[in-house]
Amino acid sequence: MKAAVLVKPREIQMRDIPKPVPRRDEVLVRVKSVGICGSDSHLYKTGGTGPVRMSGPLILGHEAAGVIEEAGDEVKNRKIGDRVSIEPGIPCFKCSFCLSGKYNVCPDMRFFATPPVDGAFTEYVKVPEILSFPLAANTSFDEGALLEPFSIGLWACHRSGVSPGSSVLVTGCGPLGITSIMAAAVCGAAKIIAVDVQDFRLEFARRAGATVVLNSSQGDIIPQVLAATNGLGADVAIEATGVIELVQSLHEMVMRGGKIVIAGISAHTDFVPVPLRYLMRKEIDILSLYRYANMYGKALNIVEARKVDLGSLVSQTFPLEKVQEAMEFVEHNPDKAMKVIIRQT
Amino acid sequence: MKAAVLVKPREIQMRDIPKPVPRRDEVLVRVKSVGICGSDSHLYKTGGTGPVRMSGPLILGHEAAGVIEEAGDEVKNRKIGDRVSIEPGIPCFKCSFCLSGKYNVCPDMRFFATPPVDGAFTEYVKVPEILSFPLAANTSFDEGALLEPFSIGLWACHRSGVSPGSSVLVTGCGPLGITSIMAAAVCGAAKIIAVDVQDFRLEFARRAGATVVLNSSQGDIIPQVLAATNGLGADVAIEATGVIELVQSLHEMVMRGGKIVIAGISAHTDFVPVPLRYLMRKEIDILSLYRYANMYGKALNIVEARKVDLGSLVSQTFPLEKVQEAMEFVEHNPDKAMKVIIRQT
Amino acid sequence: MKAAVLVKPREIQMRDIPKPVPRRDEVLVRVKSVGICGSDSHLYKTGGTGPVRMSGPLILGHEAAGVIEEAGDEVKNRKIGDRVSIEPGIPCFKCSFCLSGKYNVCPDMRFFATPPVDGAFTEYVKVPEILSFPLAANTSFDEGALLEPFSIGLWACHRSGVSPGSSVLVTGCGPLGITSIMAAAVCGAAKIIAVDVQDFRLEFARRAGATVVLNSSQGDIIPQVLAATNGLGADVAIEATGVIELVQSLHEMVMRGGKIVIAGISAHTDFVPVPLRYLMRKEIDILSLYRYANMYGKALNIVEARKVDLGSLVSQTFPLEKVQEAMEFVEHNPDKAMKVIIRQT
Amino acid sequence: MKAAVLVKPREIQMRDIPKPVPRRDEVLVRVKSVGICGSDSHLYKTGGTGPVRMSGPLILGHEAAGVIEEAGDEVKNRKIGDRVSIEPGIPCFKCSFCLSGKYNVCPDMRFFATPPVDGAFTEYVKVPEILSFPLAANTSFDEGALLEPFSIGLWACHRSGVSPGSSVLVTGCGPLGITSIMAAAVCGAAKIIAVDVQDFRLEFARRAGATVVLNSSQGDIIPQVLAATNGLGADVAIEATGVIELVQSLHEMVMRGGKIVIAGISAHTDFVPVPLRYLMRKEIDILSLYRYANMYGKALNIVEARKVDLGSLVSQTFPLEKVQEAMEFVEHNPDKAMKVIIRQT
Repeated sequence: MKAAVLVKPREIQMRDIPKPVPRRDEVLVRVKSVGICGSDSHLYKTGGTGPVRMSGPLILGHEAAGVIEEAGDEVKNRKIGDRVSIEPGIPCFKCSFCLSGKYNVCPDMRFFATPPVDGAFTEYVKVPEILSFPLAANTSFDEGALLEPFSIGLWACHRSGVSPGSSVLVTGCGPLGITSIMAAAVCGAAKIIAVDVQDFRLEFARRAGATVVLNSSQGDIIPQVLAATNGLGADVAIEATGVIELVQSLHEMVMRGGKIVIAGISAHTDFVPVPLRYLMRKEIDILSLYRYANMYGKALNIVEARKVDLGSLVSQTFPLEKVQEAMEFVEHNPDKAMKVIIRQT
Repeated sequence: MKAAVLVKPREIQMRDIPKPVPRRDEVLVRVKSVGICGSDSHLYKTGGTGPVRMSGPLILGHEAAGVIEEAGDEVKNRKIGDRVSIEPGIPCFKCSFCLSGKYNVCPDMRFFATPPVDGAFTEYVKVPEILSFPLAANTSFDEGALLEPFSIGLWACHRSGVSPGSSVLVTGCGPLGITSIMAAAVCGAAKIIAVDVQDFRLEFARRAGATVVLNSSQGDIIPQVLAATNGLGADVAIEATGVIELVQSLHEMVMRGGKIVIAGISAHTDFVPVPLRYLMRKEIDILSLYRYANMYGKALNIVEARKVDLGSLVSQTFPLEKVQEAMEFVEHNPDKAMKVIIRQT
Repeated sequence: MKAAVLVKPREIQMRDIPKPVPRRDEVLVRVKSVGICGSDSHLYKTGGTGPVRMSGPLILGHEAAGVIEEAGDEVKNRKIGDRVSIEPGIPCFKCSFCLSGKYNVCPDMRFFATPPVDGAFTEYVKVPEILSFPLAANTSFDEGALLEPFSIGLWACHRSGVSPGSSVLVTGCGPLGITSIMAAAVCGAAKIIAVDVQDFRLEFARRAGATVVLNSSQGDIIPQVLAATNGLGADVAIEATGVIELVQSLHEMVMRGGKIVIAGISAHTDFVPVPLRYLMRKEIDILSLYRYANMYGKALNIVEARKVDLGSLVSQTFPLEKVQEAMEFVEHNPDKAMKVIIRQT
Repeated sequence: MKAAVLVKPREIQMRDIPKPVPRRDEVLVRVKSVGICGSDSHLYKTGGTGPVRMSGPLILGHEAAGVIEEAGDEVKNRKIGDRVSIEPGIPCFKCSFCLSGKYNVCPDMRFFATPPVDGAFTEYVKVPEILSFPLAANTSFDEGALLEPFSIGLWACHRSGVSPGSSVLVTGCGPLGITSIMAAAVCGAAKIIAVDVQDFRLEFARRAGATVVLNSSQGDIIPQVLAATNGLGADVAIEATGVIELVQSLHEMVMRGGKIVIAGISAHTDFVPVPLRYLMRKEIDILSLYRYANMYGKALNIVEARKVDLGSLVSQTFPLEKVQEAMEFVEHNPDKAMKVIIRQT
């Protein structure tokens, strides 16, 4: 089968590699849509992500959907021809983290496109049956692929307790910020304040459900956030910029007893100077976000019920043969690319 | 001022009584809209509610909104002319229940239209400033009044953990069932199954956000509920019929580990035979619902953000002079009355 | 190997059956201590439990500890010779219930001594590695076996939120009531009120940590429970008698906003008349209890830290050859038998 | 009445000032025991705490107990002669924070010994009835005073979910660290690892319930903490040193999905460099701690049940006339002073 293989930073080659053979509890999925994530871009550019470096050729892509073409003989609830979204992290299923509902921090997690595990910029992938989620007839492959970033947005809202009537501040309106806005809207948040420096992105934010959009390049956002929240600040801030100065001022825009979710830190150095003293005085917590657990099934139901339009995130599509071109496009067009999809017919 | 006073069961007289004088931390509200609740009807018909009997003339009505006409001299954040919704339960503010966020079970609660405390079918009421909630310009007095039953729906969803992607079964589509459906939709529930015996009510359910409506007079609902929930049953059932047979079969329609919220029991005898053994096997909990706490502010934000259309609940309106007629109308027109409002101009 | 096989109600035969062969991820455990549980007694007497009937010969016993004698070749963190306690329920590990931390309600659960799955009144059993919990040097096999009922007590306290300073009412002081008392004490409950009709059992309750013990055959307990809880009732009631009259009066002994945990219902008929109306007025919830999830590891640590003395529960021991005699002893000596252990040397 | 008044940094004068007059819902308490807290020392030395500076003479002391000598005419549940502990923070009781159980972040909080509010190094103080907690006969005034720091320890454990079987790391064994250890033990923590640089303090830690004590001046604590927690790290870390290097290494000693509670930051500069990237990878949250809410009643019950020995914290006592001497003693004897009490007879 064909695969787009990252052989070294900034060099992707189309290669012919063996088609995976599903184990007894696995399904083989013919890939249809795969989104490009910021971590793919980062790996493409640098060959690593955080402390992890690629140790050999690597297939990127972890936001994927497709059609089941084979099923192992222990597979019970899926059949050939099922259109499915793929949850791309395969935990061990049996450690204390897995058994207690926190499989996202399973130490033996094997996650697509995280060295040395290959991803989905290829014709076929295999996954355990339970990690393939059947798409409703009204749900596209693109939407299936985008359950992945939407699951992160849902996880951010779940962990921080966004609920009906909440006010939520989302800083940074890349794909993760936008899916956080969508998730907050689905959770019933009544005020959603979106912040970015690009009007292009703020327009996506507005369509996703933001009730106030602020371009932070055009003046101090703190008074505007306070004005939008009765002077109290937002119940929850979801930080997806990685801009240190912003992280440092969030306590002024978050309510006493509120939460800050750190969702994007790729640009961070190891240490971020945090105003703990001021956070303490308002008893504001800083919550970490690491992928998600048990969100795909919920995300699927939400999309099927048309409570969210994930398809609206897609800004461009490229065929499998042009993954490298797509990567370069994403990098050089921050004012045009929101979510780019690699589509196969 | 004028007041519609229940002097004995089924007899309401218009009387002239002294206008209340607000204390230093209270506001005086000129009443504009008041909804008729099932408990008002029950008191009207029987003179009591549960173990509580009226001990003298009583003014009914606890779902109210109006305009502030006077403010005590310690009132800080409200002013004359403010359009407000009134949270109708006045707790002691200082017991361990109040201090721990459970003021709805404050033993010293004084609740409108609960003997011997008078309600709002009158020209003026007074409440502590903090229990008057300023309405946005886009929110009507009727909507302000209906924050009350909507707060119950929100409380039902809050207590039972309805969240994005949840499946929710609502049995009984009177006003409380309908506001529970609205609340579930705002919480992000993806499947909302509504059950009633009246198509009139099911039509309201559908408009409120139900994704499946079932007329239980036309066949067994259990297989239909299971079909709508992948055979697993709903995450949460909100029971608002008081029909014992239905309560007894809910465990078959609720998921393992799910919740049943008992929201309506006015028709119940003291003891309801409950299949504890079967509930245990699926670890299903039975949650009680007693009014609400800390929901008004959230409800207000939700209505202002137009995430719910409370006004759609209103089926008829009557003037203050016709409270008795309105009561009779509600009683004799179950196929026409959803929420009846007493409006003053 | 030898096994004590229930061939029909009230008839246990010692039989020689094939020794189990562990799969690659399983360990084979030489059984040392097994407790007799109420469900074992019930199966012994009636051949069934709830809706489940034995369909052939059945080995009872699910509270077990022993020594690992073999390990499959994928076993990583256990070795031959390890002294272990056995968590006796084997879930599927891969359904949505398992992945979300609720494996106790996994529909494919295979639980020891639950027809048609055999239990541990035998020389050897096998379990997945992850369900064998290494015992510290200071922990006996009897204690290892009793992690099972202690885990239920912990689960009861966990689900109902028993925490430092709580007041807890435990009705019924059989083994489950006693382990609930122990668990409540470990959780920091400040007042633990134990109720039974047998002074023999109340003496165990006192040693387990009850601060007040009440013999309900000697007068109305309601005023005594209220006197012990400042007139407010207990935060939590754990009901382990199955006595309907008691279930019906718990709302009078539980605080507003409190919880009732239904832990023992073997004596119940299908339907228990429950005073829903009165529970609602105090917003008291009824929580079901079905086994436990993720409690063994915690229980193990607690026993190792000597925060609880599970060994004090053991009232008699019998050898494997005398399981039938032990069963009869338990049945006919409610005033002498607390926890009977089948011990092998 | 006499009062020890801080007139400027490092100068306390005994003055004669008017005795407070209780309002209708207040009690007047004759002070018996008051603990010296780190914040008192800090104010004594610098005249400020965080951004707050003393603007005039100030009476320090907020950990207090005494005897009721007068009661306003609306006081219902206290009487003259009652021995009580005083919760020293008086919230507004009526804002959204107070009503939702988070009165510790009430913007209108008036807290003893926080400029410009006076504290308890005086003969008499007054508080609302509800903030005076009657002591059991077995509870001393010193213990009553120490409910305050113990409530902080309970709050740290409550917010971070310490529960039976948890492992807890406490860094810094001053009074707050010690009460956190005591609280963790009461919560059922099975492993409590205490870290300090002073053996004097580690000895208190051991008596308070620490199962492992580590002197961090004698080698790297990370491998020791991991060894004590099966290589996984502790479920919860409670940080009470304010040492930045320690804060920066906690993620290595905390379990995936665990919590870090920031309890002591007086020595911190405004910004603390925090390794957010590493915290994210393990989804570890940083929780702020600001005083406590709803802990006094629980703390009282726990002390009465003798589940904790708060009296063991007391290292020295001084009379009211010697507050300045006591302050100097605390400052210059870190190896002798744990908790110093100002006692009046």
